[in-house]
Amino acid sequence: MNKKHIEGGICAPLGFKASGVAADINGKGNSKKDVALIFSEVAAISAGVFTLNAVKAAPILVTTEVLKNKVLQAVVINSRNANSCTGEQGLKDAKEMCRLTAHSLGIKEAMVAVSSTGVIGLPLPMERIEKGILSAATALKADGSHDAAAAIMTTDTFPKQVAIQMELGTSTITIGGISKGSGMVHPNMATILGFITTDAKISPEALQAALKKGNENSFNMISVDGDTSTNDMLLIMANGLSGNVEIQIDTPEFEEFTLALEYVLVFLAKEIARDGEGATKLLEVQIIGAGSEKDAKIAARAVCSSMLVKTAIFGRDANWGRILCALGYSGAHFDPANVNLYIGDVQVMEKGTPLMFDEEAALKVLSQNEIVILGDLQSGNGSAISWGCDLSYEYVKINGAYRT
Amino acid sequence: MNKKHIEGGICAPLGFKASGVAADINGKGNSKKDVALIFSEVAAISAGVFTLNAVKAAPILVTTEVLKNKVLQAVVINSRNANSCTGEQGLKDAKEMCRLTAHSLGIKEAMVAVSSTGVIGLPLPMERIEKGILSAATALKADGSHDAAAAIMTTDTFPKQVAIQMELGTSTITIGGISKGSGMVHPNMATILGFITTDAKISPEALQAALKKGNENSFNMISVDGDTSTNDMLLIMANGLSGNVEIQIDTPEFEEFTLALEYVLVFLAKEIARDGEGATKLLEVQIIGAGSEKDAKIAARAVCSSMLVKTAIFGRDANWGRILCALGYSGAHFDPANVNLYIGDVQVMEKGTPLMFDEEAALKVLSQNEIVILGDLQSGNGSAISWGCDLSYEYVKINGAYRT
Repeated sequence: MNKKHIEGGICAPLGFKASGVAADINGKGNSKKDVALIFSEVAAISAGVFTLNAVKAAPILVTTEVLKNKVLQAVVINSRNANSCTGEQGLKDAKEMCRLTAHSLGIKEAMVAVSSTGVIGLPLPMERIEKGILSAATALKADGSHDAAAAIMTTDTFPKQVAIQMELGTSTITIGGISKGSGMVHPNMATILGFITTDAKISPEALQAALKKGNENSFNMISVDGDTSTNDMLLIMANGLSGNVEIQIDTPEFEEFTLALEYVLVFLAKEIARDGEGATKLLEVQIIGAGSEKDAKIAARAVCSSMLVKTAIFGRDANWGRILCALGYSGAHFDPANVNLYIGDVQVMEKGTPLMFDEEAALKVLSQNEIVILGDLQSGNGSAISWGCDLSYEYVKINGAYRT
Repeated sequence: MNKKHIEGGICAPLGFKASGVAADINGKGNSKKDVALIFSEVAAISAGVFTLNAVKAAPILVTTEVLKNKVLQAVVINSRNANSCTGEQGLKDAKEMCRLTAHSLGIKEAMVAVSSTGVIGLPLPMERIEKGILSAATALKADGSHDAAAAIMTTDTFPKQVAIQMELGTSTITIGGISKGSGMVHPNMATILGFITTDAKISPEALQAALKKGNENSFNMISVDGDTSTNDMLLIMANGLSGNVEIQIDTPEFEEFTLALEYVLVFLAKEIARDGEGATKLLEVQIIGAGSEKDAKIAARAVCSSMLVKTAIFGRDANWGRILCALGYSGAHFDPANVNLYIGDVQVMEKGTPLMFDEEAALKVLSQNEIVILGDLQSGNGSAISWGCDLSYEYVKINGAYRT
């Protein structure tokens, strides 16, 4: 794939502005940014993927409705309050956020998506939200991606953004993204927010398909703690300003665009895993030789989600037994007597039998910031990659006292 | 149910002896007991439930085979080495443990079950195992239950045993049990060992059915960290010495026996959850009003397994949002707008809407050693109870450096 990384995040594609401002949403008076805006100069074909949790936060319900038209011009996001389990008032408040944003920007309310993340069950402080939205609208700028990325953070320790540029036919297309993750990050979109912008011209059907596929191999393959949230949302806006011939589904251009989008999503997903709550290491689990892609995925995710694997990685313990054990309960079909297992470049198991490996070499691998575990099930051609992080004291500390 | 607690654990039923000795299985020279024996004076009708992990330890394979005859006279158990992922040698060693035990006791090898727990992937130190078995055979005694319970411990902090006595017709029947648990405790029998003895006379078919049902409502409803092990085993031996009329399946006596057995299993399961690695509190999640018993079970287990709920309990944080969130992703069918939620006697949610509850009262509840969460889904008549524990710094510490 021809592509290069460029600066600018979600503002890198033509016609996008963004901002992030501090609206003191939790009322504690500190200056953390907590309201973000993303704005496209022209209406953008849009698509979304949402949490599968039976309990859906108000902004999920409102944005799902808005997206039925497949067109957006702005997204408003707040952190520090999830507007989840907030009943009828929560729905009204989410809609009011759309209305306020539309009014501030002089666009139609039906073109505004809303997203929230943070504490569950508290009503939104609408006065402060309103001030925040007005302030964010004023602050919109062509280099506002970093501010927006900072404003959507909760327990994240750094803002996450990326942009790439590629040639498509005779046009140059740019894709940018921001995301937030940290705790409750898991397959099926758990407490992840992701906002992608592109100046590609693409049909609504193709855009939705590309997002769905990209999501399956990226955000759905990361796990921090196995909990899936009520607020997860991944949105993409494609405003068509690059002037390319409209991308149609199942064409070579569609494949190229989907690969590029997946690259962006994987980049953001890895950033999320790396920044899991209390994480000290990024864990990448590669499964090859599975009976099917589905088997590969559930096997990779089981290893990545195992609390025992995660604590072993934290403790720099080459405990391959826990890896094999997680493969065993994953539900993937394989013969344990066929498995080859590697931690970094150290092979620890050959055809299901543990090897007398070099503990020093293994410790060296486990002392890196990124650990790759490779499992070859030797049962077929299915492969998948999952990302996660280790489990540290800090995770317990962060989550033992989040609400209070 | 007529029943009373009595002393004696697995030696309380007529005709059982037990022992636990230190055989230095990990070669570190300390005096922790690590080989246990359970012996019945006469051959006992027996049944078992085993791990569902695709990777099965050698003792699981050997004991499954032995149990096809449905008769046992002894069980030999070692801790500190799981004899898992040990290939052909592991199978030979597990069989050798049966042979050595049979030889020491002067019984048939086909009447000996074997069980192991501990580190995965290391060969058993058979010389020390042999000495341990000989020593355990010599040490067998009528008050040896506590020693056996201590010898099967790994990271458990206390031995777990119980015995009850009940009247059945004109006979007095006794059921005793020991168990070990701690980390990797989860539905589908994860790193749990449980050994039950009874002097009841019961048909093999009835015994297997009673064990299966009791296990489903006890050991399968506890969760410490979501990992399921390669070694889980729950065995029951019924030697018939109480002289009751043989219990047949689907009779009133069968129902009575099953209830009593379930009581013993639930008692041991709660002890395991209470002693989860690093646990400071026992968590009991009761789900009522679910659409089905299956829905109630998956909902209860999801709440009990949620790392975010577990850390909130550790932090004494009445974070009902995380409870509702776990219900939401459990896969149980329910309408969030119907849910009533209680933490202890403090109602925190009414029909899906959070209540302004007394935080002081909630803190008082969360400061207890046993926390009960009750969720009423108001969708039907299904109910279930699950047990777990909080997630503390200590869990990370224990599991960050288990093998090394």
